[in-house]
Amino acid sequence: MPRVVDHGQRRGEIAEALWRIAAREGLEAVSLSRVADEAGVSKGRVQHYFASRDELLAFTATLLYLRVDERIGTYLAEADRASPLTLVRAMLVGILPLDDEGRTDALVGSAFLVRAVGDPEMRESYRASNRMAVEGLTQKLVGAREKGELAAGVDPEHEASTLFLLARGLTESLLLGEHTPESALAVVDRELARISA
Amino acid sequence: MPRVVDHGQRRGEIAEALWRIAAREGLEAVSLSRVADEAGVSKGRVQHYFASRDELLAFTATLLYLRVDERIGTYLAEADRASPLTLVRAMLVGILPLDDEGRTDALVGSAFLVRAVGDPEMRESYRASNRMAVEGLTQKLVGAREKGELAAGVDPEHEASTLFLLARGLTESLLLGEHTPESALAVVDRELARISA
Repeated sequence: MPRVVDHGQRRGEIAEALWRIAAREGLEAVSLSRVADEAGVSKGRVQHYFASRDELLAFTATLLYLRVDERIGTYLAEADRASPLTLVRAMLVGILPLDDEGRTDALVGSAFLVRAVGDPEMRESYRASNRMAVEGLTQKLVGAREKGELAAGVDPEHEASTLFLLARGLTESLLLGEHTPESALAVVDRELARISA
Repeated sequence: MPRVVDHGQRRGEIAEALWRIAAREGLEAVSLSRVADEAGVSKGRVQHYFASRDELLAFTATLLYLRVDERIGTYLAEADRASPLTLVRAMLVGILPLDDEGRTDALVGSAFLVRAVGDPEMRESYRASNRMAVEGLTQKLVGAREKGELAAGVDPEHEASTLFLLARGLTESLLLGEHTPESALAVVDRELARISA
């Protein structure tokens, strides 16, 4: 056995186990014992890294945020930085659950929602990440306006908020299979065409 | 004891008990025993009306649909029938969780979402009610176009789908307290102003 355990990695592996349970059965099915079984470690080992179920859930909320943020970053890196409206599209594409990984994240996010409504700390974490997403979109829409990419009368702040609400509606719709990745992207592109100069 | 039991009413009371548990703790917390405790009846009594937990959940999904439908009906009855765009607004207002009852319904709906993703029957029930909502909105937007209420180039079908996605995003946002009922209605009115002639 290695004497130096990679604490961060081990925490990550345990959180991934929680992820799989939450995506399959919802957050209520998550317990320290269930997570230990799923991760193939003892309950004591889980408790070594997370003192309580609440601590485990809080860590998972942070991890969810980082996962979505990383995916957005990947799309942004591939986008044409000279066109802020292309960056807006990249952010929206990064938010939507268009592949298996995105679906799992979105399912965990949905499971968190019900809990976050009743839990002030989790609610604030949820709201903070949503605020950052809307601010990111606003910033890019302001850039688009400066580059002459926006149609007259489009308000960056209002539009950022509306596009983000739409992305959340689309996320639910994609999870239910009402939209395919292709038809969801068509909705995004229709909205972007609407606000384009 | 009355010899004729109002079967529908008793089922409704049991479903209401499930409602309260699901809104507080999520759907995973719902079991026949917990529901019996919450309703103040025996587990056997619950089983008399619902053979299984799945049957109870299926009934609740139907009840959720009826509750939202009834609320939309109330708003529609108060709206100006001569203006189809006013009816569109009434439908959206009926969908959004703007009061305590609406919040409870929306929380139960969110709890159902994670389950519906993994359960073909519940998913189809969820999708069918969404389809009916979008069809209702489309019909009213077609009426608005015929009355000259719609701006040029607004496609009723696309717009109905977008407005419904937006309402779903707003529902989540209202549950998290990111939007107040007033600010959510302002979003709806801004979108309706955008598509108005």
